[in-house]
Amino acid sequence: MLKSHETIAKLCRPIYCINDIMLNKACRLLDIQKPANMKLYETVGQFDIDPGVIDRSAGRYSYDSFVDAVRLNIQGKVDAVATLPINKQSWSKAGIEYVGHTQVLREKFGDNSIMMMGCVDMFVALYTDHIPIKDVPKSIKKDLIKNFLCQLSQKVDGKYDSIAVLGLNPHSGDGGAIGSEDIVISHAIEETNRQLGREVFAGPVVPDVAFIYHSRQNYKLFVAMYHDQGLAPLKALCFDEVINISLGDKISRASVGHGTAYDIAYKNSDRLSNTSYINSIKYLVDS
Amino acid sequence: MLKSHETIAKLCRPIYCINDIMLNKACRLLDIQKPANMKLYETVGQFDIDPGVIDRSAGRYSYDSFVDAVRLNIQGKVDAVATLPINKQSWSKAGIEYVGHTQVLREKFGDNSIMMMGCVDMFVALYTDHIPIKDVPKSIKKDLIKNFLCQLSQKVDGKYDSIAVLGLNPHSGDGGAIGSEDIVISHAIEETNRQLGREVFAGPVVPDVAFIYHSRQNYKLFVAMYHDQGLAPLKALCFDEVINISLGDKISRASVGHGTAYDIAYKNSDRLSNTSYINSIKYLVDS
Repeated sequence: MLKSHETIAKLCRPIYCINDIMLNKACRLLDIQKPANMKLYETVGQFDIDPGVIDRSAGRYSYDSFVDAVRLNIQGKVDAVATLPINKQSWSKAGIEYVGHTQVLREKFGDNSIMMMGCVDMFVALYTDHIPIKDVPKSIKKDLIKNFLCQLSQKVDGKYDSIAVLGLNPHSGDGGAIGSEDIVISHAIEETNRQLGREVFAGPVVPDVAFIYHSRQNYKLFVAMYHDQGLAPLKALCFDEVINISLGDKISRASVGHGTAYDIAYKNSDRLSNTSYINSIKYLVDS
Repeated sequence: MLKSHETIAKLCRPIYCINDIMLNKACRLLDIQKPANMKLYETVGQFDIDPGVIDRSAGRYSYDSFVDAVRLNIQGKVDAVATLPINKQSWSKAGIEYVGHTQVLREKFGDNSIMMMGCVDMFVALYTDHIPIKDVPKSIKKDLIKNFLCQLSQKVDGKYDSIAVLGLNPHSGDGGAIGSEDIVISHAIEETNRQLGREVFAGPVVPDVAFIYHSRQNYKLFVAMYHDQGLAPLKALCFDEVINISLGDKISRASVGHGTAYDIAYKNSDRLSNTSYINSIKYLVDS
């Protein structure tokens, strides 16, 4: 954030939800000159920064900073929210029960958001996200999928000619030979297209070939039935560039696609990349 | 096969399990001069080639050809078997109940083979393969995983310093917050390493970041808990080059990584690529 301020300030007028005391602590620890002209919304609180250590005070502060930013967005004081990664275990230590930003938006702020990750070339929307694999097949219900696809189509209205919907099982079930869920997905796709009056959704696309080069020429948006089905190929292809988007009704939010990377936190490592951070801001500016 | 004979013949002494009648039919249909000096093992049977159409006679012939090749390998008349793709529905129409080559090797020939796919840069071994997603979590049992990992370690003995074992759930379960199976995998890995007397296996590696560039620098062999977890990222990265290997006890077999591609069958399409075919032969020659 500190190293990217100059670039960001050329794209938009950023307000940072952090107080001056914490900002100074971070600059000292990183041995960086505090950038001039950083406009702050001073989130209350402070703690000693212990790089790479899971800590309840850090968890609490990152949560409070996020909540402040969302409130500014709801109040119309900012156009969008960009978030940096949070540590789920730090949140948990601070007594915050949400598993991530998207869940806070859904449950605390009642914003009906779809989690989507991607880069310039391709995006993946998740039908289910942070649930165990054993619960995924139980979530494959025709009406739930139709509902999800209709919402998605509304939220990305007109941006995509054709959206690929992945199957659930190997080879999309090989015509019912490997599980029956893909038949349900197929009916959900047909009925959604009929309801929308055009062939917006295609599939069920066979999961293990959905992301090969030839398929990525045809589709730029993919619906994955579960977390790793979409995110593993996406991150294999373009990890450094990936951003995370909450497609909401009230709140416009994008985030870096990576985690806290505690192994290189505050170490000025060679592996540091701000590409995803800059991409997330660019996405919000363009939206 | 016809277009690659000259290249293949420089790598090994191929024997083709097809009879001269069928070979001539294919050459005529493709308008290709039959290569000189193709040594044949004349698999019995013939049928009219109807390109891109699922057909029981074609299914039967492709099965018989495969069985002939395996028998030649078991009898020591050839060192290895290379296979081209088969169509599962054609097999099914011909009354052949196996879902693929690997299952024939396991069930008909009693060869205890592990399915592995990959290219020069990376390989993925599948702990489960052609089963529905809903059955995958039930297959996560400590002793079964230990058994699989010990077998794999034997079969690739010494070729890899460290082998990555993927978790099952998003974020490998986030310490038990998203499903409990990853804890079972973790124990299986620990106990296998203890039994082998060295740290052969690492993990559970978080599935959605297992195949990012940085991780692929550390690992060249990955164990996926299920089909698409490993094959979707692999094929996204290097589809054209991917080969399929059956790591067996009695039979040495490699195959192209792609399917029958009926949409471009016998069309001399631009999308035709023999890279995977050549790679599979190279793999066998080097093994």
